[in-house]
Amino acid sequence: MGRYVFGVDIGGTTVKLGLFSEEGGLLEQWEIPTVKENEGAAILPDVVGSIKAKMKEKGIAEQNVAGIGVGAPGAVDDEGTLVGGAVNIGWKPFNIPEAIGAYINVPVKAVNDANAAAYGEMWQGGGKGSSNMVAVTLGTGVGGGIVVNGNILTGATGAGGEIGHIHLVDEETESCGCGNKGCLEQYASATGIARLARRRLAQDEKPSILRGKDAISAKSVFDAVKVGDEVAIEVAEQFGDYLGKGLAAVAAVVNPEVFVIGGGVSKAGEILLSFVEPAYQKYAFHQCRGARFVLAELGNDAGIYGAAGVVINGPSRASH
Amino acid sequence: MGRYVFGVDIGGTTVKLGLFSEEGGLLEQWEIPTVKENEGAAILPDVVGSIKAKMKEKGIAEQNVAGIGVGAPGAVDDEGTLVGGAVNIGWKPFNIPEAIGAYINVPVKAVNDANAAAYGEMWQGGGKGSSNMVAVTLGTGVGGGIVVNGNILTGATGAGGEIGHIHLVDEETESCGCGNKGCLEQYASATGIARLARRRLAQDEKPSILRGKDAISAKSVFDAVKVGDEVAIEVAEQFGDYLGKGLAAVAAVVNPEVFVIGGGVSKAGEILLSFVEPAYQKYAFHQCRGARFVLAELGNDAGIYGAAGVVINGPSRASH
Repeated sequence: MGRYVFGVDIGGTTVKLGLFSEEGGLLEQWEIPTVKENEGAAILPDVVGSIKAKMKEKGIAEQNVAGIGVGAPGAVDDEGTLVGGAVNIGWKPFNIPEAIGAYINVPVKAVNDANAAAYGEMWQGGGKGSSNMVAVTLGTGVGGGIVVNGNILTGATGAGGEIGHIHLVDEETESCGCGNKGCLEQYASATGIARLARRRLAQDEKPSILRGKDAISAKSVFDAVKVGDEVAIEVAEQFGDYLGKGLAAVAAVVNPEVFVIGGGVSKAGEILLSFVEPAYQKYAFHQCRGARFVLAELGNDAGIYGAAGVVINGPSRASH
Repeated sequence: MGRYVFGVDIGGTTVKLGLFSEEGGLLEQWEIPTVKENEGAAILPDVVGSIKAKMKEKGIAEQNVAGIGVGAPGAVDDEGTLVGGAVNIGWKPFNIPEAIGAYINVPVKAVNDANAAAYGEMWQGGGKGSSNMVAVTLGTGVGGGIVVNGNILTGATGAGGEIGHIHLVDEETESCGCGNKGCLEQYASATGIARLARRRLAQDEKPSILRGKDAISAKSVFDAVKVGDEVAIEVAEQFGDYLGKGLAAVAAVVNPEVFVIGGGVSKAGEILLSFVEPAYQKYAFHQCRGARFVLAELGNDAGIYGAAGVVINGPSRASH
């Protein structure tokens, strides 16, 4: 009988769980609510309880569980310690594998949730077949997950892949959520694109279907691009220029085979890439220009895939 | 009897060689000329001949050689293939360990020379004790070598750590050696610093001991800084701002514990760091601000140390 792996993705509203075969097939997936009260004290017991219930339902014994992989919404070091806690769910710093080990006797690995999603996309999604990739998440913010030689790049303090905070614009007057000014995230996130659009519209009176809308979103910008709206196209070009410049900087550091673009903004589809790739080619070092751009494929399931993947594929980090 | 390792650093003028104990002690070092004629066909035979002569001199048998590490001046992939050749010494692409294997029956590892130097600084130099570091070489150009979890970051096409080609300035009108405009290297290399100084001097008539010099160099700028020359200090501040901004971008990608600053420009000493660190702190993501800045310690020997080190410390790359 084959063994099983659980992939867990702890989010601010729900915890996503997946039961995988040790060969990497997703057999079942489900969700439980994230109970954030009392500094999130119930979350891990709830997760383990849900896993145990699934094991009972399926008749899976502990010795047939190869491991549990956990993606957590905060910086996680190579030992699985949530080094700075996880503000969104009330967690203080602690070691996740040790804490889960108090409830169940199977191997546990913990990684940052964005890194888990990146790993998932490399293993079974848009980056399949590559072992050097950068996953870029364009959502409320701009996140990144970097895989080098098949291993997640964690960094010294868990901030590896925080590419949304590459400084791009000296003249910026508004602050990024991180406190700095001029971060990539301020131009390439969903909120950043909407801000670029508002700034562009305020410049002059050029007609655009974006005018007069109650709220401009990244989606409304790309919808307008698709029907040929010139102002929207200018905004998309600005977005592409910033993101292409930022990713060219990333490439000069880690030289990936592929960029996998995901997050809510990526729902615009291939047209998004058509604005990013030419700018990337313009700014990239010549030896880095062969990097491919693809859309993420696993959507919200990337996290459970990646969490299971780091268990299945052995060390989640480089050997010493 | 202990075993031995040879570290080889192939440069455009000389090949540096080092004999190390397997514990990492440098026992002897010497140089041979780099014979570039005929597409550098004599270089590897010369290297192996020199190693064999040393073995004979010391009475070291092949079975007592744990390996030979080679740093080569071009992009080298994880299998030791010089993927794009090495223009400076006339080499076309080939697999270095295989080629050396035709002459001597010991394990061979090959890496890029800048990466070897970075590894050397991590192992026995300024970055000793850290396993996540970025070595920055400020010379004619700006080079980088990145170590992640103790392994050299090579990248998909050997361009990992090419941090000198991070794009920083949209308005730049002159071209970088790479063909792009506005690369970090154009402001933070020895030639870049001299250029910043010439541009600053041309702006106005502010008195400076830099005026009237035949040729302004990075050294003359930092010498002037040390005696309080205001124009030179302005130039050093510009240099520090560019380099700090570039290294903050690097940190948002790989989040190192330490930056090790080497190359000819670093001979200015600690005062150099006093211009870079404040700028880095200004632009860096908060979780990356703990990175230390230190000067390189091994100078021109970093390459032989690093080449030997990747042999001694096992895999020069992350495990899959």
